[in-house]
Amino acid sequence: MESLQKYFDTIESALADIEYAASPDGLYAPVRYELSLGGKRVRPLLTLLACEMFGGDCRSALHAAVGLEVFHNFTLLHDDVMDKADVRRGKPTVHKVWDENRAILSGDAMEIIAFRYIARTPAPHTGAVIDWFLKTALEICEGQQYDMEFETRDDVTEAEYIEMIRLKTAVLLGGALKIGAIIGGADSADADRIYRFGESLGLAFQLQDDWLDVYGDPARFGKKIGGDILNNKKTYMLINAQRRAEGADAEELSHWLSATGYDPAEKIAAVTALYNRVGAGELCLQQVDAYSRRAIEALREIALPETAKQPLYDLATSLIKRDH
Amino acid sequence: MESLQKYFDTIESALADIEYAASPDGLYAPVRYELSLGGKRVRPLLTLLACEMFGGDCRSALHAAVGLEVFHNFTLLHDDVMDKADVRRGKPTVHKVWDENRAILSGDAMEIIAFRYIARTPAPHTGAVIDWFLKTALEICEGQQYDMEFETRDDVTEAEYIEMIRLKTAVLLGGALKIGAIIGGADSADADRIYRFGESLGLAFQLQDDWLDVYGDPARFGKKIGGDILNNKKTYMLINAQRRAEGADAEELSHWLSATGYDPAEKIAAVTALYNRVGAGELCLQQVDAYSRRAIEALREIALPETAKQPLYDLATSLIKRDH
Repeated sequence: MESLQKYFDTIESALADIEYAASPDGLYAPVRYELSLGGKRVRPLLTLLACEMFGGDCRSALHAAVGLEVFHNFTLLHDDVMDKADVRRGKPTVHKVWDENRAILSGDAMEIIAFRYIARTPAPHTGAVIDWFLKTALEICEGQQYDMEFETRDDVTEAEYIEMIRLKTAVLLGGALKIGAIIGGADSADADRIYRFGESLGLAFQLQDDWLDVYGDPARFGKKIGGDILNNKKTYMLINAQRRAEGADAEELSHWLSATGYDPAEKIAAVTALYNRVGAGELCLQQVDAYSRRAIEALREIALPETAKQPLYDLATSLIKRDH
Repeated sequence: MESLQKYFDTIESALADIEYAASPDGLYAPVRYELSLGGKRVRPLLTLLACEMFGGDCRSALHAAVGLEVFHNFTLLHDDVMDKADVRRGKPTVHKVWDENRAILSGDAMEIIAFRYIARTPAPHTGAVIDWFLKTALEICEGQQYDMEFETRDDVTEAEYIEMIRLKTAVLLGGALKIGAIIGGADSADADRIYRFGESLGLAFQLQDDWLDVYGDPARFGKKIGGDILNNKKTYMLINAQRRAEGADAEELSHWLSATGYDPAEKIAAVTALYNRVGAGELCLQQVDAYSRRAIEALREIALPETAKQPLYDLATSLIKRDH
């Protein structure tokens, strides 16, 4: 990924250059804090790469790229409030450093700042970029709503789960690419193809993330293993384990889902073993592969020389690791 | 205000026609609920009136008008969460009907819907309207932040208080008028004048609201009298009473500001009597008059026949009642 360093530098520099009013610092300090927590900056990177791939000057996509990253961080900030999450990227979340009201209001301000950058996209693509961004932004809210609803539902289907992660995660990757492609001058067929590439890649990535939460190497995954199992999170694997488990397996799964006062390590080990017995982990990996293939197919259909697409092939490979 | 009925009908109908995705209803039901609570619809009315005043077709300002009203309602929704307010316009607030997470997320979605409508403003004014709207939107967040900070500060000055209500309330009235004027084809000098009219009117209106909270007729004011006094809210009157009170008055005010376990009616009566003794109510009314005059002067400067401005003169008169 060394060749991408110049893009990351451009993005970090643009994020650091966001101009805030001189006061109230109480409003803008949390915004700066959230944006300083880092992260992979995948969305703005996708926007810049897509723009250049279609022959555009990536400087004309930089405002949109910044807007997308600010919006993404706004969703993380408010999601952390809703999930009562204490830690984000190894640091205390905004509502822990300050308080909930500050987190709500600073998030609201970030949403406005994101729109401001999106709207600075130069003509003639301003309107198309705004439209596509707003459509995507609303879908992300819909995804978060489904995610919260699923917490209290016992009958979430595999299709509903896929739709939820599509809205919550995948559409923003697709949207970031499509917006870059529009600014770069892609025709609508190719802009749709790159959207499908990003959307499928996003689904593959999220399903892989679910798998890694159970089977990952803690040192490389970056968070504790088994969190989803302890929270009874209705992931692709749990939904399929519930569907497939029979007899004693079904009883054991049901026991763990309603258990209280257990040893966390024991629950993680038991549910993981059950996932293994019913093949839920394997099924999840098959889906990762299927969506990865779909992403690559969409990329292949784009009417550009394969060499021009190489950075996106490389990025897809780096996001979907093949060593599991 | 009968002659304004056609505008109100247009606005209500446009608000009712907002298209939501079919699902998740859990996200959009609170949005519809918040918008159904009513209110005076002053902001979209100002936009339509300003557009027509400068010779524009008010249909071309309708999207912006809807965007402004949706944004205003979004701020009420999130402010109610932050203030832990149980009632809005006589009905339970969104976070009481549903829960806080729903209120946060639905508000986020409303912010996006507001932008969507603002961005639908037809060319050639789309960019100018978006810019002015986003500037105003961010200022409103700044005002809310100051408002929250003032709750825990003892040294808020009169100037700081005026700046807070300017940001939290007045700029949106100014912005609604300016956006309507831009769409109606006003030149920049007149667009600035109508902004100043709205901004001054907003300050007069908010100061009057503070006064009515103490001295209003409960039957006509629509909320309980004395709420600000019970909450030690740092209004223009409290700030000035603290500055002016001496000796026994200063001690009594200090006593009531730190008192607990008191009889609410007794505190209201005592603080009101103190406001009377130090002339805080009268001072507030003088400010209402001063800002009203400033508003009328700005309106008078606009390069249009006085008859064209009559609806705004009438509206100013109806908002700032002269019977106090």
